[in-house]
Amino acid sequence: MFKKILIANRGEIALRVIRTCKEMGIRTVAVYSTADKDSLHVKFADEAVCIGPAVSKDSYLSIQKIISAAEITNADAIHPGYGFLSENAEFSQVCQDYNIKFIGASPENIDKMGDKATAKATMKEAGVPTIPGSEGLLKSPGEGKKLASKIKYPVIIKATAGGGGKGMRIIKREEDFDKAWASARQEAEASFGNPGLYLEKFIEEPRHVEVQVMGDQYGKACHLSERDCSIQRRHQKLVEETPSPILDKKLRDKMGKAAIKAAEFIRYEGAGTVEFLVDKHGDFYFMEMNTRIQVEHPITEEVTDFDLIKEQIKVAMGEKVSGKNYYPNLFSMECRINAEDPSRDFRPSPGKITNLHIPGGHGVRVDTHVYAGYSIPPNYDSMIAKLIVSAQSREECLVRMKRALEEFVIEGIKTTIPFHIKLMDDPDFKKGQFTTAFMDTFDLTDL
Amino acid sequence: MFKKILIANRGEIALRVIRTCKEMGIRTVAVYSTADKDSLHVKFADEAVCIGPAVSKDSYLSIQKIISAAEITNADAIHPGYGFLSENAEFSQVCQDYNIKFIGASPENIDKMGDKATAKATMKEAGVPTIPGSEGLLKSPGEGKKLASKIKYPVIIKATAGGGGKGMRIIKREEDFDKAWASARQEAEASFGNPGLYLEKFIEEPRHVEVQVMGDQYGKACHLSERDCSIQRRHQKLVEETPSPILDKKLRDKMGKAAIKAAEFIRYEGAGTVEFLVDKHGDFYFMEMNTRIQVEHPITEEVTDFDLIKEQIKVAMGEKVSGKNYYPNLFSMECRINAEDPSRDFRPSPGKITNLHIPGGHGVRVDTHVYAGYSIPPNYDSMIAKLIVSAQSREECLVRMKRALEEFVIEGIKTTIPFHIKLMDDPDFKKGQFTTAFMDTFDLTDL
Repeated sequence: MFKKILIANRGEIALRVIRTCKEMGIRTVAVYSTADKDSLHVKFADEAVCIGPAVSKDSYLSIQKIISAAEITNADAIHPGYGFLSENAEFSQVCQDYNIKFIGASPENIDKMGDKATAKATMKEAGVPTIPGSEGLLKSPGEGKKLASKIKYPVIIKATAGGGGKGMRIIKREEDFDKAWASARQEAEASFGNPGLYLEKFIEEPRHVEVQVMGDQYGKACHLSERDCSIQRRHQKLVEETPSPILDKKLRDKMGKAAIKAAEFIRYEGAGTVEFLVDKHGDFYFMEMNTRIQVEHPITEEVTDFDLIKEQIKVAMGEKVSGKNYYPNLFSMECRINAEDPSRDFRPSPGKITNLHIPGGHGVRVDTHVYAGYSIPPNYDSMIAKLIVSAQSREECLVRMKRALEEFVIEGIKTTIPFHIKLMDDPDFKKGQFTTAFMDTFDLTDL
Repeated sequence: MFKKILIANRGEIALRVIRTCKEMGIRTVAVYSTADKDSLHVKFADEAVCIGPAVSKDSYLSIQKIISAAEITNADAIHPGYGFLSENAEFSQVCQDYNIKFIGASPENIDKMGDKATAKATMKEAGVPTIPGSEGLLKSPGEGKKLASKIKYPVIIKATAGGGGKGMRIIKREEDFDKAWASARQEAEASFGNPGLYLEKFIEEPRHVEVQVMGDQYGKACHLSERDCSIQRRHQKLVEETPSPILDKKLRDKMGKAAIKAAEFIRYEGAGTVEFLVDKHGDFYFMEMNTRIQVEHPITEEVTDFDLIKEQIKVAMGEKVSGKNYYPNLFSMECRINAEDPSRDFRPSPGKITNLHIPGGHGVRVDTHVYAGYSIPPNYDSMIAKLIVSAQSREECLVRMKRALEEFVIEGIKTTIPFHIKLMDDPDFKKGQFTTAFMDTFDLTDL
């Protein structure tokens, strides 16, 4: 049983972990940078240690300083939250070396899942569906066509040195292959000085659907169903929901089994998320595994009634997973409230919160570290609150979210609330019809 | 379908009803006294009408003013909340006369359940267990002894003109009857000038357990299980929880059936609560029926996932109840946060809230109409917030409640938070071992 846990993080997730520790009767140590001295996580922890200046590399990313803080305060475990050092293999290793339990993945598993190519190869070996494609670079258009006819069109060819869509072509039929090949090579050569191309199956109308897993120290894992996080902007999630509007029981079970297979294959310990792309045919492909708690974990808590931080701590203390899987008995949705101006390309808007009213009532949960009078430092992530609602149906979730968003008052700064309010009225969003490209065409004027 | 609902109430319940109306797409009219012009229910309603001065009889209790406000604003229904006019048969009747749907009980049912003697007689006729006792006054100790041996000892004799325990005797064995009779008569005569006594079965170690029912316009009712409200002080509930720690499945079903019988016998429409006393033998007796939504309804919402205000509105619009009953799938508890000083006999402590921090996170719900800077008027009920937590077990509920209470910051006034924090650590309360007399011996010093 842990007596004291140090939380190597800040903001809402630090507070989130402290809350659960309090409920479990475990003492807490907050660490903070000078920019965060007035943060709630500092106020609510039993002890707090200043670990340096605002700049993350000298505070929240300094392994040495955090280990020192744990040593000084006699913490017997560290919870890394998300971001910062949560997926840092060296940190996980140093904790082990210092005999401090790292409430997260082993160094080996962080390494394995942190590298995309290794992760994909490992999952392939485990029998988890990955996006089919060439092993490395294609030598000729002929080789490409042979592979494409095997994995079926549409396919996509990408420049190995690429980025930003340059040297990238979607090919729908074999007769278009040669032309696409030639122009992509030319563009790749011109843009990056490297004409090398590789090929993958093109995922049509992709949705981002991730499965929450929990593994124990004995090689067993269970799943707690999925979260649909397709509403993203530049790979930043904006809204998450569970259950996914596109999953039926059969697909949920299939994806859940695949996620467990992934976790058990690497003897994964703790909370993890296996991210998949699901295409319009209901086929799904491994994207990556996050070896930590996710920002969006509360929606899973709302529909399964588990406290996932508590479950993390329990498996870290050596408890076994139950052997059952868990399914949503409600609908839940989260809006990330960021200190950003959505009408100006989501430009960060740090500053002082002059007035704050947090929505409440039935089916409404807010996780936040801010309060009236709090100054949001410009140094970190701009997320200032998570608004989570749950209800008996998706429709009820949508109206409840809109009601809660309209009640939310945050003055002194710009926030993403107006964007979320507009989203709740979007016909396609309301119908659950959207892909990861949804935000590319969403009208952000008139907010 | 209602287009517009007037909420004939104030405070958190007015806000509570407005929230649900918003989610249902129904417009709202708030009414307010001059003392409440800055209240959140006024800000969040679509329209607001001032109905008079602070004193309730000239505003929230004025049928005429409220009906005028409904007429002016074209509201097609009125939600009365709890307290004020919610159980006023005349108001229910006037609404009917003006063709405004009263979201509550019929005048007949309010009358029937409002009078204790009529309510008891009606329930007896319906076959709902009531506390056995004499019909009216006892003529002699002999008649008393005959009855007592029939309904079984212990019994209690009470002065018909009585109050405050005067002229009241608990009798455990027949051999004590004559002596108790003589002294009670003498005390009743001396105290009230009326020696008349009646007899009832004495309820041993009573718990207040109430069943939530919902009846439709077609004579059908269902139940949504119970709430244990035994933690009371001078008949004011302080803490409520569900499920009751003393009910098992069998007793829950029995009490649920009795509550449905009560509701269906009088063709009860809307949300209602059938209050029972449960003794240490697991026998239960009808106490009274509340023909309105209760303060403590959210704990039922948390464990059944229904929005009870929505269900009220739906049955008022003519929807049928489902025909099923609903059972708790979680544990939930509510602490009433009052602007009172618990260390000074719960003396009211109105005034300005100078600083406010509302707890959040997993399993925490707060229903409140107050905000930082809000001045609590001295004219009304002192309840300023309801803190509701839910969890997978009662133990988890208790620690979560304590955590949330400790996070709650309300500055500028005294509140009952310190009392609740102490209660969460009480060994008997933690074990679920308490009766309605619990508060009589609870130590309120050292808060």
